[in-house]
Amino acid sequence: MVATLDGYTGFKHFLISSPAEYVAHVETNRPEKLNAFIEAMWLELGQIFRKLSHDPNVRAVIFSAVGERAFTSGLDVHAASQGPILSQDGTSDGSRYATRVRRNIYEFQDSISAIEKCEKPVIVVMHGISIGLAIDMSCCADIRICSKDARFSVKEVDIGMAADIGTLSRLPKIVGNHSWVKDVCLSARFFGAEEAFAVGFVSKVLENKTQAIDAATKLATLIASKSPVAVQGTKEILNYSRDNSVEDGLRYTAIWNAAMLQSNDLKSAMLSGIKKTKPRFEKL
Amino acid sequence: MVATLDGYTGFKHFLISSPAEYVAHVETNRPEKLNAFIEAMWLELGQIFRKLSHDPNVRAVIFSAVGERAFTSGLDVHAASQGPILSQDGTSDGSRYATRVRRNIYEFQDSISAIEKCEKPVIVVMHGISIGLAIDMSCCADIRICSKDARFSVKEVDIGMAADIGTLSRLPKIVGNHSWVKDVCLSARFFGAEEAFAVGFVSKVLENKTQAIDAATKLATLIASKSPVAVQGTKEILNYSRDNSVEDGLRYTAIWNAAMLQSNDLKSAMLSGIKKTKPRFEKL
Amino acid sequence: MVATLDGYTGFKHFLISSPAEYVAHVETNRPEKLNAFIEAMWLELGQIFRKLSHDPNVRAVIFSAVGERAFTSGLDVHAASQGPILSQDGTSDGSRYATRVRRNIYEFQDSISAIEKCEKPVIVVMHGISIGLAIDMSCCADIRICSKDARFSVKEVDIGMAADIGTLSRLPKIVGNHSWVKDVCLSARFFGAEEAFAVGFVSKVLENKTQAIDAATKLATLIASKSPVAVQGTKEILNYSRDNSVEDGLRYTAIWNAAMLQSNDLKSAMLSGIKKTKPRFEKL
Amino acid sequence: MVATLDGYTGFKHFLISSPAEYVAHVETNRPEKLNAFIEAMWLELGQIFRKLSHDPNVRAVIFSAVGERAFTSGLDVHAASQGPILSQDGTSDGSRYATRVRRNIYEFQDSISAIEKCEKPVIVVMHGISIGLAIDMSCCADIRICSKDARFSVKEVDIGMAADIGTLSRLPKIVGNHSWVKDVCLSARFFGAEEAFAVGFVSKVLENKTQAIDAATKLATLIASKSPVAVQGTKEILNYSRDNSVEDGLRYTAIWNAAMLQSNDLKSAMLSGIKKTKPRFEKL
Amino acid sequence: MVATLDGYTGFKHFLISSPAEYVAHVETNRPEKLNAFIEAMWLELGQIFRKLSHDPNVRAVIFSAVGERAFTSGLDVHAASQGPILSQDGTSDGSRYATRVRRNIYEFQDSISAIEKCEKPVIVVMHGISIGLAIDMSCCADIRICSKDARFSVKEVDIGMAADIGTLSRLPKIVGNHSWVKDVCLSARFFGAEEAFAVGFVSKVLENKTQAIDAATKLATLIASKSPVAVQGTKEILNYSRDNSVEDGLRYTAIWNAAMLQSNDLKSAMLSGIKKTKPRFEKL
Amino acid sequence: MVATLDGYTGFKHFLISSPAEYVAHVETNRPEKLNAFIEAMWLELGQIFRKLSHDPNVRAVIFSAVGERAFTSGLDVHAASQGPILSQDGTSDGSRYATRVRRNIYEFQDSISAIEKCEKPVIVVMHGISIGLAIDMSCCADIRICSKDARFSVKEVDIGMAADIGTLSRLPKIVGNHSWVKDVCLSARFFGAEEAFAVGFVSKVLENKTQAIDAATKLATLIASKSPVAVQGTKEILNYSRDNSVEDGLRYTAIWNAAMLQSNDLKSAMLSGIKKTKPRFEKL
Repeated sequence: MVATLDGYTGFKHFLISSPAEYVAHVETNRPEKLNAFIEAMWLELGQIFRKLSHDPNVRAVIFSAVGERAFTSGLDVHAASQGPILSQDGTSDGSRYATRVRRNIYEFQDSISAIEKCEKPVIVVMHGISIGLAIDMSCCADIRICSKDARFSVKEVDIGMAADIGTLSRLPKIVGNHSWVKDVCLSARFFGAEEAFAVGFVSKVLENKTQAIDAATKLATLIASKSPVAVQGTKEILNYSRDNSVEDGLRYTAIWNAAMLQSNDLKSAMLSGIKKTKPRFEKL
Repeated sequence: MVATLDGYTGFKHFLISSPAEYVAHVETNRPEKLNAFIEAMWLELGQIFRKLSHDPNVRAVIFSAVGERAFTSGLDVHAASQGPILSQDGTSDGSRYATRVRRNIYEFQDSISAIEKCEKPVIVVMHGISIGLAIDMSCCADIRICSKDARFSVKEVDIGMAADIGTLSRLPKIVGNHSWVKDVCLSARFFGAEEAFAVGFVSKVLENKTQAIDAATKLATLIASKSPVAVQGTKEILNYSRDNSVEDGLRYTAIWNAAMLQSNDLKSAMLSGIKKTKPRFEKL
Repeated sequence: MVATLDGYTGFKHFLISSPAEYVAHVETNRPEKLNAFIEAMWLELGQIFRKLSHDPNVRAVIFSAVGERAFTSGLDVHAASQGPILSQDGTSDGSRYATRVRRNIYEFQDSISAIEKCEKPVIVVMHGISIGLAIDMSCCADIRICSKDARFSVKEVDIGMAADIGTLSRLPKIVGNHSWVKDVCLSARFFGAEEAFAVGFVSKVLENKTQAIDAATKLATLIASKSPVAVQGTKEILNYSRDNSVEDGLRYTAIWNAAMLQSNDLKSAMLSGIKKTKPRFEKL
Repeated sequence: MVATLDGYTGFKHFLISSPAEYVAHVETNRPEKLNAFIEAMWLELGQIFRKLSHDPNVRAVIFSAVGERAFTSGLDVHAASQGPILSQDGTSDGSRYATRVRRNIYEFQDSISAIEKCEKPVIVVMHGISIGLAIDMSCCADIRICSKDARFSVKEVDIGMAADIGTLSRLPKIVGNHSWVKDVCLSARFFGAEEAFAVGFVSKVLENKTQAIDAATKLATLIASKSPVAVQGTKEILNYSRDNSVEDGLRYTAIWNAAMLQSNDLKSAMLSGIKKTKPRFEKL
Repeated sequence: MVATLDGYTGFKHFLISSPAEYVAHVETNRPEKLNAFIEAMWLELGQIFRKLSHDPNVRAVIFSAVGERAFTSGLDVHAASQGPILSQDGTSDGSRYATRVRRNIYEFQDSISAIEKCEKPVIVVMHGISIGLAIDMSCCADIRICSKDARFSVKEVDIGMAADIGTLSRLPKIVGNHSWVKDVCLSARFFGAEEAFAVGFVSKVLENKTQAIDAATKLATLIASKSPVAVQGTKEILNYSRDNSVEDGLRYTAIWNAAMLQSNDLKSAMLSGIKKTKPRFEKL
Repeated sequence: MVATLDGYTGFKHFLISSPAEYVAHVETNRPEKLNAFIEAMWLELGQIFRKLSHDPNVRAVIFSAVGERAFTSGLDVHAASQGPILSQDGTSDGSRYATRVRRNIYEFQDSISAIEKCEKPVIVVMHGISIGLAIDMSCCADIRICSKDARFSVKEVDIGMAADIGTLSRLPKIVGNHSWVKDVCLSARFFGAEEAFAVGFVSKVLENKTQAIDAATKLATLIASKSPVAVQGTKEILNYSRDNSVEDGLRYTAIWNAAMLQSNDLKSAMLSGIKKTKPRFEKL
């Protein structure tokens, strides 16, 4: 039986548990609709990850979805077609409509970016149908794992739009094969787990969803056993460096560590290394 | 028989045809010289791609070369040795010579960059000898495909210069293996189709040139069947994101889509998805 | 017998030789301590690479380590624990301690970055234990080669800190698989030569250290036989482009080559190409 | 009598009114403490400006303070000394303390930056004591006006810290006299309205606070009479351009206006220009 | 009588002359319409400045307008209202309209930016009505001079749009008083020569247009008497530095001068300095 | 009598003293040559400022020059004409010459930039002839003061070159009047103290050199009496912000202060403020 995580009741669309000490597990819970997202869901998802970000009881997060068939089929198109973007709400003025759309996209982006901004590492586990928003969300995670049955697609061009929740901004930065990135983004074609692994979109493929969750839990537990000061600093600096020059990265690292080396973790970790004991770190 | 494309007569060094609806095919046509480039050719190439960029009858472009032996052997060195860079034209003043060279490089870069700036996706198909300028040009394309017989080389150091038409600026951004990028750029050694595929320089290798062109045509036709608003936005945002931070990419995407979601394509595509019909999109 | 390199006597912790014309070989020489680094060593390393950078007798550099067991086990933790970072030296003021740490990190970074800033290409050969600082240093090299027995780890989180000498700023830029980068940086797990090759961290794996040194020497000799103007310009522009947009890269390339095409190497190289002779280039 | 503004009840530390159509007036209301700020105040201020940002009934905002003596004396130091930054809360671990401080600064910065991010132009009116946070906040406003009695100081060095809520990041970008900027920031000396005007920190000085509020109201009313599409786009692009190159600014402007020129305001404004009538614009 | 400038016949909307050796004078010539701009004019203006940029007979350019009443009243609104932006041309699709607008703005921007990109310094002389496009164009010039009667306005918000030809991107970078910049851009209010001088928008105010042209001619003649290598390098580096960090500016300067110090001008200028003679410089 | 500053003997071209506690005064000492600079001087200057940067006994620096006639007449042209840039040393190869020039400029820039990178504030006092290198050096200082007799010129175009030691990169960032910046840089014309003050190049003009030194000493003494943690952080963040976006500036500030608020200075300063005593701060 999986332990609950204190303080995360009241969320409607996600299950939140704690499979191991300092590890949180967030699961999208709308399997009857292939875990398709409606607005209430992404708003809730943003809240959850903002809360995890500062929660001293959490040092690593797993993100997956309930059910056998889909990590997510993306935006719930039926719901979206009645939302503010598609319905013109009586206005005939293009600039006012565009303003509403822009604000709406920003809000949506902010919710999903909360996964990336979460101070703790996030491991995403994808299975089955993983399209559209699945790619946007998983690009925000730190580590991407999937099961063999995963079927991916950057699906947005098939509904007549350029993806706008982050895939197009993040994918070319996290996968070093731009010819492939352009291919899948422009054609919206499906690709499987093997191809995703070969190009480096995921870094591990497991036999099935259960094994993938197990692998993620093991990795999350390993990361959660390390100094949280070290781990969270590593995530922060890696994300900073992706978007800045090496020169700026080095400078940022130096002033970051000027504060963060003032840590008891340094001594605990070194001492444990020598004594071959398991260090314990204060909460962060 | 391949259809001609309206409005592209009068080009001397390139064949331009339309193998499928909304698909253009540009072929370098100087096979007797291994498709080596002289100045008139790159100026013409720039004009062609600028024209394709705004042509409402074109939604995807294939770029390849005529003949069996070479995609291109690069700059026509014999011709270049009589051009403005190598001949000092009587001036003994280094700064004036440098000014002429700089202007000349800018003009050359602008012509080749027109491939990248073309609003429509460009699929390049390389075969046989593909060296020097071949790498500069293919780095500007969105998707790189080749046949098994392709032999590549970033050849410039062998003629005593650093490549200056774009390879050194683009290759490290489109291939995520810098040790390999440095290896081939510093040594000018040849590498084959298999190696190119393994490191992600090309995303598909076909048995021979004919099959490679076929594969490119199929992919171009697929892309051309999608909403041009969606496809062109996707290319634009992917290229923008390559050069900017994720934060800036998200902002750019939001204001781009604020305008571009005001599209009938969105409804047509969604409706077609539900009805399982093939959508038709207005010209762009 | 390996030739010495003029002007490099007086260094205590490194062997410096010249295995071939225009090729320098720098070897870390503290095998009895698994080539662990103390402060005197990184200061000396910085001096050596600054000297090689402008040495007209050097056109390519190999960097490896003496002994069978380790390229380096990283920072000498025993020595470091008595250094300025860990010992608070009686101050109880966090801001003053942070200032001392910041200055110390900058000095350390500068020494290691000298490898990257060296105007000549650097090929690093790693074997055996290659952890912590091994990754920082090799990320500064242009080309990474290893032997089969190499065991790598971004080890810093295991001593309670985020790596601050460059790994976190450079690794995401030189390896195009961010899921893997995050995995190894956050977990500090070991990975071997094969995995390093598969993700593109190294571009060649050899049977053993001897063969790896041989391969590096051969590649260095090849590079050293090319025009130094061409080779050094290529390194410079590739490094510049990694950190800047394509647009800026093209502009930088144009003004760089405006000066550097005024080179006799261009004519020598072209002429040798036609005559099938081996060109000789003036020192640089 | 000043009209209230619908929907802004329930704020404790600020008065919010509407002195003219489409104009909001926000007043800090803690005159008995020289309008010094406690945490609850900056959190509330952030909420107010985020609400004004999307409020269709507001097209321009005036920001000033109640009372005769001070716009604000800055942070309430007495309260702050008991807050999370100064009290170490029992932790002896520098890195954990630093983490808490960093999160706290981000939250504070976000509240104040809401003034800058407000989509509607903000005119700040300063009078009397205007130090510390007064400079941080006014640097976020679009237009700075003051009365003759204003006494300014970038006061932070006097309490042993570098200003961290924005003054040091914004002041050098909005005042083109860096020698002066460094002078006042490093010395914490006081300067008056005349000097503030001479260097361009404020763009208008009025005889007293009443006249300054009048001038601001007049200007706000003028701005509020213009097309909100035009005005808000102008603010957005000016702020974007401050932080980006001209080239990027032009590109951003083009895609912004691609959406925003689809506005009835364009026709209304032009027509009114010809007909010499006062145009009316739809809400935004 | 003013000399003509060779090679500039055939332009319909501008007069081009040469008031002094190496000095060109470009005059907008549509005084009967207050020098309002139609599309044909900005396209021609772009061509003229691109030609001047590489013309070896030109070392400094003056830009002013014919007639007594206006430098320019900006865009010819009557003509524009029948152009591609305002007329929807039958399309009801917002994204296609937006695409046309975006392309149109880019073309307009490119024409005006040609003033900034002209390799030779440009001195603009403004008089009388100088609104809208007057500000866009003059922001591209290097030096801004005006006569006392000049009346300026960033007029665009008055026609319901944010200025999109460059004012909003350049003005905050060339005038160091952002409170004033925001004031005039958001209110569209008029300001005179004195105010323009006080804030640093213009650097000189002359009694009338004739005297202003005289002052510009004198300054242009002085600049044209200097080494063109020195002058053009100075313009280039100043513009580069406006948009880049100091660190990047220094690097750019070093590689620029690595080429440009190979100039006979250096010796001629130094020698003339010693000998007190007037140096003559080779064409550039 | 002025006190000496410990540890600064052995410098040949500069006098170094300590006019007040924690204040250093550096004086160029070659009055017989109008304080013209030879290479040995700028190398020494770089060493001095690097030493001052970390010297715990120094909290503010004054930089001026000995003698009545000149702050500096710039580069010693006679000496330079025999240096590596002007003498081609027998090489006829433009690229090798350019390489030597580039390295030489970098070394020169690094020496002068040491003024800017000095962690302590630098107040420069200029008098009399202040041309060429005078502008480069003073642009690196934090605060610029001059006496009435100062005569400035960005003199480089008069010797046939674009200034390359920093003026062109820094001047447009520290003076917010680009029309004026372009005017003086392109024309090399002289300008006086009054004009320098009006445009904001200097922030104070004193009657004569003695009074200017007095004013600088007073200001330096004031700054040196403040918390060095606060003062040095303020300089660092202001310089960082000049070159980065506001968003990046805020982030940098937050992580800087996360470390630097752990300072006893904060408590000492606050307590002294309440008690109206003069605080004493620990060395930094």
